[in-house]
Amino acid sequence: MKVGKKKFSSIWFENNKLYIIDQTLLPFKFKIKTLKTLDDFCFAIKNMMVRGAPLIGVTGAFALALEVKRNPKKQNIYYAVKKILKTRPTAVNLSWALKKIQEKILNVESNLRPKTAMMMAEEIRSNDIDSCKRIGKFGYELIKKIYVKKKKKINILTHCNAGWLATVDWGTALSPIFYAHKKGIPLHIWVDETRPRNQGALLTSWELKNENVPHTVIVDNAGGHLMQNSLVDLCLVGSDRTTINGDVCNKIGTYLKALSAYENKIPFFVALPTSTIDENITNSNEIPIETRSGDELSKLFFKKSNRLEQGEIFVKGTQTFNPSFDVTPSRFVSKLITENGICDSNKRSIKKILHPND
Amino acid sequence: MKVGKKKFSSIWFENNKLYIIDQTLLPFKFKIKTLKTLDDFCFAIKNMMVRGAPLIGVTGAFALALEVKRNPKKQNIYYAVKKILKTRPTAVNLSWALKKIQEKILNVESNLRPKTAMMMAEEIRSNDIDSCKRIGKFGYELIKKIYVKKKKKINILTHCNAGWLATVDWGTALSPIFYAHKKGIPLHIWVDETRPRNQGALLTSWELKNENVPHTVIVDNAGGHLMQNSLVDLCLVGSDRTTINGDVCNKIGTYLKALSAYENKIPFFVALPTSTIDENITNSNEIPIETRSGDELSKLFFKKSNRLEQGEIFVKGTQTFNPSFDVTPSRFVSKLITENGICDSNKRSIKKILHPND
Repeated sequence: MKVGKKKFSSIWFENNKLYIIDQTLLPFKFKIKTLKTLDDFCFAIKNMMVRGAPLIGVTGAFALALEVKRNPKKQNIYYAVKKILKTRPTAVNLSWALKKIQEKILNVESNLRPKTAMMMAEEIRSNDIDSCKRIGKFGYELIKKIYVKKKKKINILTHCNAGWLATVDWGTALSPIFYAHKKGIPLHIWVDETRPRNQGALLTSWELKNENVPHTVIVDNAGGHLMQNSLVDLCLVGSDRTTINGDVCNKIGTYLKALSAYENKIPFFVALPTSTIDENITNSNEIPIETRSGDELSKLFFKKSNRLEQGEIFVKGTQTFNPSFDVTPSRFVSKLITENGICDSNKRSIKKILHPND
Repeated sequence: MKVGKKKFSSIWFENNKLYIIDQTLLPFKFKIKTLKTLDDFCFAIKNMMVRGAPLIGVTGAFALALEVKRNPKKQNIYYAVKKILKTRPTAVNLSWALKKIQEKILNVESNLRPKTAMMMAEEIRSNDIDSCKRIGKFGYELIKKIYVKKKKKINILTHCNAGWLATVDWGTALSPIFYAHKKGIPLHIWVDETRPRNQGALLTSWELKNENVPHTVIVDNAGGHLMQNSLVDLCLVGSDRTTINGDVCNKIGTYLKALSAYENKIPFFVALPTSTIDENITNSNEIPIETRSGDELSKLFFKKSNRLEQGEIFVKGTQTFNPSFDVTPSRFVSKLITENGICDSNKRSIKKILHPND
């Protein structure tokens, strides 16, 4: 999607180098970085220079491919996969991508592994773009239905950033929004600030601004009040892991918005590539919920006389707890939007979407 | 309550001067200010140097009393009441206190008005202390009941600041907590950060720290997840205006926590002096919800090398919307805790509490 007038994706391999956009500095600074070593990759994922379940998966795939190029031995593959997997536990796309590559390259000769791994990483990347675009098209149909009924500007609430920065291009939750906007449906997006990392206020609003989609940032506390007052027509979020039963693990605070949408009879849609669905888990209690440093609550970047600095907004020694994700039970989810189509949040529908030919 | 080792209240009249603590600087700086003119008072209320429904009421009472001392004419009383009322529209305690004084002083000779108004302001102040302490005692009984059953540390989630800083002393939601803590019930408080003004992370945690009550600050997004995982035994919040039907208007985000408490079968208690109950409103849609400047979202105080500065955490030009309160429908409220006792959140019970002798 666009940054200013130029088109970008969030990760690309060019002239033998892997490029990312350092998302911790956005929207204040647009800085492109190259990742070389396994440590570079792990640091970038852990510290959220790249983030968002699909992009974490793609980044992990390239991390493994480049490490295999350096040392294609079996033992090193196991070591690298384990190390990359440890960076972020909640999103399932990372293990999905790594396992897919690992399985394939362990079945070929050592000397073929680097090329095979890199081809697969490139394929995972391009499939992600394709999936996200298809999610956009399917999601657009849902938005259009509501627009045909309302015949007025559609207000959509979104939480965190599930835009092109969280994927390779297009995004998951934002893809239907970009698609509908391009198709001329009048939209206004309520952007949850998304504490503690403020991905909504920083990344989502930046993406929407670059694509000229009208939007307003609100604190995470405000969504319920807006829904009570008919100021939200639908909610649209992404997911980091979805169980086969339709329980949706996503950025902390998603659950509260889903409860409020349910209470106020507002559709709550979740957009996700099928790589986000974890077929192995039926009980959402089994999803490992990442707890991150409490410093994320108090240490913020701020702009002061055109300089970017970091400061503390709480007093020193304030005890904090920082779980990063929560689970929204399937009954609060209206529809899942995937690259294979739209389905209900239950086992039968999800299985059908995952294996359409069964 | 205590600040360090010394006891303080949030507002006091001494040697002909009215003192407040400038709450916009807490907990970074403890600064006492004197308010002299009507403009001083209005500025202090509007800019939240004093805040919290009961304290706004008491501050308004002193504002009127001092203005009447300067000019006790009828016309000036009307003018002053109107001007003070305009500062914050949502909390009903302000109009409750002003109307009470206005009614009385308009019925006495002009020369008696200053003394009468000041006596009433002092009375409203001391009644508030008394009410809050009684709320503490009644609320403690509720906490004790849960403790007797659980026999382990009680985890309480609170939103915003409804502590002694929001009243004159003791607080509303925090009063039962202080009371139970003094009585030896083991407690741990989950303190919602409370965006955009962060009254939880800044004021509530400061109060709890001064009284040695164990607590942890969380982002507003986290409460639902904690409740789903049995980490919250009860919720306890204050109110800015409660309808006679039991609908509770309180700091934005309260509604989302109430929905989650209801869904997870966790008691949701609201502590309030009866001056917060608006007998004139049956439909909560009639409550004026204050919308404050969007700058409150992006402009924050932060500490940098021991200096307090203000910085912007969003990029310039980000559009924001900042409603300050929401309404929690009565069916999500388990009990109301008032100075007259505990009641259910319905008209019959509330009327009984308001007029015990009817």
